Amino acid sequence: MAKRPAFADWLDDTNDVTRMFLAAGQIPGLINLAGGLPDPQLYPARALADLAHAALTETPQDALNYAPIEGYGALRDALATRYETDKLKLTRENVLITSGGIQGLELIGKVLLNEGGAIATQTPTYLGALDAWRPRRPTYRPMRPDANDFDPAVALRGCQFGYTVPNFSNPTGKLVPTNVRAALVEAAQSTGTWLVEDDPYGALYYDETPLPRMIELAGDGAPYDGPVIYLGSLSKELAPGLRIGWVIAAPEMIAKLTLAKQGSDMSTSGLSQVLTLRTFETGLDARVLPDILTLYAARRDALCAAMETHLTPWFDWEKPVGGMFVWAVARNPDFNTDDLLQAALRAKTCVSPSSVFDPLGEDRRAIRINFTLNSEPQLAEGIRRLAVACQEVDLR
Amino acid sequence: MAKRPAFADWLDDTNDVTRMFLAAGQIPGLINLAGGLPDPQLYPARALADLAHAALTETPQDALNYAPIEGYGALRDALATRYETDKLKLTRENVLITSGGIQGLELIGKVLLNEGGAIATQTPTYLGALDAWRPRRPTYRPMRPDANDFDPAVALRGCQFGYTVPNFSNPTGKLVPTNVRAALVEAAQSTGTWLVEDDPYGALYYDETPLPRMIELAGDGAPYDGPVIYLGSLSKELAPGLRIGWVIAAPEMIAKLTLAKQGSDMSTSGLSQVLTLRTFETGLDARVLPDILTLYAARRDALCAAMETHLTPWFDWEKPVGGMFVWAVARNPDFNTDDLLQAALRAKTCVSPSSVFDPLGEDRRAIRINFTLNSEPQLAEGIRRLAVACQEVDLR
Repeated sequence: MAKRPAFADWLDDTNDVTRMFLAAGQIPGLINLAGGLPDPQLYPARALADLAHAALTETPQDALNYAPIEGYGALRDALATRYETDKLKLTRENVLITSGGIQGLELIGKVLLNEGGAIATQTPTYLGALDAWRPRRPTYRPMRPDANDFDPAVALRGCQFGYTVPNFSNPTGKLVPTNVRAALVEAAQSTGTWLVEDDPYGALYYDETPLPRMIELAGDGAPYDGPVIYLGSLSKELAPGLRIGWVIAAPEMIAKLTLAKQGSDMSTSGLSQVLTLRTFETGLDARVLPDILTLYAARRDALCAAMETHLTPWFDWEKPVGGMFVWAVARNPDFNTDDLLQAALRAKTCVSPSSVFDPLGEDRRAIRINFTLNSEPQLAEGIRRLAVACQEVDLR
Repeated sequence: MAKRPAFADWLDDTNDVTRMFLAAGQIPGLINLAGGLPDPQLYPARALADLAHAALTETPQDALNYAPIEGYGALRDALATRYETDKLKLTRENVLITSGGIQGLELIGKVLLNEGGAIATQTPTYLGALDAWRPRRPTYRPMRPDANDFDPAVALRGCQFGYTVPNFSNPTGKLVPTNVRAALVEAAQSTGTWLVEDDPYGALYYDETPLPRMIELAGDGAPYDGPVIYLGSLSKELAPGLRIGWVIAAPEMIAKLTLAKQGSDMSTSGLSQVLTLRTFETGLDARVLPDILTLYAARRDALCAAMETHLTPWFDWEKPVGGMFVWAVARNPDFNTDDLLQAALRAKTCVSPSSVFDPLGEDRRAIRINFTLNSEPQLAEGIRRLAVACQEVDLR
């Protein structure tokens, strides 16, 4: 047989992280603190079973026919209502339903990036966003909103868009403060740059009052046409397996994203959309949320207590007020968390090293630890094992 | 506010067809013969409601958690078994679950096309495939498998892949004969080119015994590693709203498509996948199929009878032995079916003009007529209106 044609060039850019984590999944007894998964025991499966049965018997065509590319009208209306404020005026023309949050990111890349296009991204940043944009081989300009000399206009000028996760950033778990949010919005307006507000963790505030969304700050009381492209998701608030996300943006952007979605998957599952609408209508998501917050807050506390006991010789961190992650930075700038991961796997635990969250792949000094998936005893044991791994790296 | 950045260049290449068809949907009393939709009354909604309830109560984690990127193992196994023959040896490593058939096409473009990459495509061809690949701005080499001088090796050599719909091609409704299938497979092997076999209509044979699939012809009794990339879908056999498709290909190709899918939507709806598995396990799809075939065959006959009565002055066509479409070619080479569509809309009916199925956008001589969505009286009335439109174009 003749030699087959080469694969597309961007596939040369992929790293081994996914393969490594998949291999980790095969280790018996591993305590996985690396992922970003909800605890499946929180999914309201029985309530969803009843809603699915009702959806398929009462509105079978909505559930089983091709949905409109941009999503069901009633669900788009429900989301417009959900996010509307006095200043932020929304209609369904501002809303696109996506097949999970990551599809929103991919579609934004599709409509805004020619090969090599420039993105200003909060750094460290979400690994999945880098995956979504890799086929366009973008250039990245790092943004560090917590740096003293951060100038949003300098960061955004000349880029196709800026990318931020203002609530409990993946990976750092930190909040972008309100004044920086406002400055980013103002810079997006003054430079004409689009500004992506990726917000999968926005409901997961454990201790504090939620800060205003950037898209709210961009609202001016007129029908929304601002530069902020907001991404929401059902994955962290209800269940990821339904693959439902949404984009809220200027109608011009929604129209282009719709064109791009047509060639990606035509439309999002009708069954999942009808189920999401019924979830909102019956208030199921609101009923589930208090249990989610209680469980995750307790786990965050348990994780931080275990870290206090075991990791202080090596790491500094801040206790996050929400989200799913603690970000720990090594005290010694020469500490290499890629090496730590290898040692951690030998000790039967697993965290995410900072290199995978750096668009330039350089940061080796930090780790991301998840606290939502494992029980309190598992978290404590995982951190004990991580300390064993730290000792091993230390002694090399 | 400053001027916003330009959208990606490929968006300049999109045509107005979608917008025109969407506008057509607003015309009261329109009989739409343009689409390619199943008849929703055939969806087994009650049976699916029971299966969905059972899936969410009995295997809630499979339905509600993130599915593996490549799809549920049990569903991949079921599809490997479904397609396996004596010569075609398959395991789950040969199978990827996709969010509908069009995602399979998009992922193939993602992993095989750099900007401007070459595709040899059966012409006329599926509009959705053109949409899926447009962001990569490919170059197209038309393949006409029914031409007397068709040479598959000449067509495929130097291309990244060939694209065919051998069963009831969209738009022509024709079969690629077995000897041409075999010649295409042989040419793919001798030239080292990938060969995409897109098969959404493969179950819709009304009169004849199904021809062998190209992927079967490529099987040699060893674990499958051939050049044919087969795409299947649940959309035409059960219901499109679940958004379930599958790719069957060499493990090397499945691995690359999986990498691409990770950045597209992470995974396909778990609920839809579990529902599909239970559909296969309970034989629901097989129980539904006879009713689908009976209804669609009768409608095909009704459509062709109406065409015989009304369209013979203007068009020639062959009665298809399966699928969803009749392809009618104008007797007069100067007949312009783009103009016909405008006249048809005024007469309150709608067909698809050949220009949209031509990768080069040039063919103006034919139309695609769908017979699966409308009742027999609607089909007859739609064709009567189309004849009125033909008369109008004729008289200009």
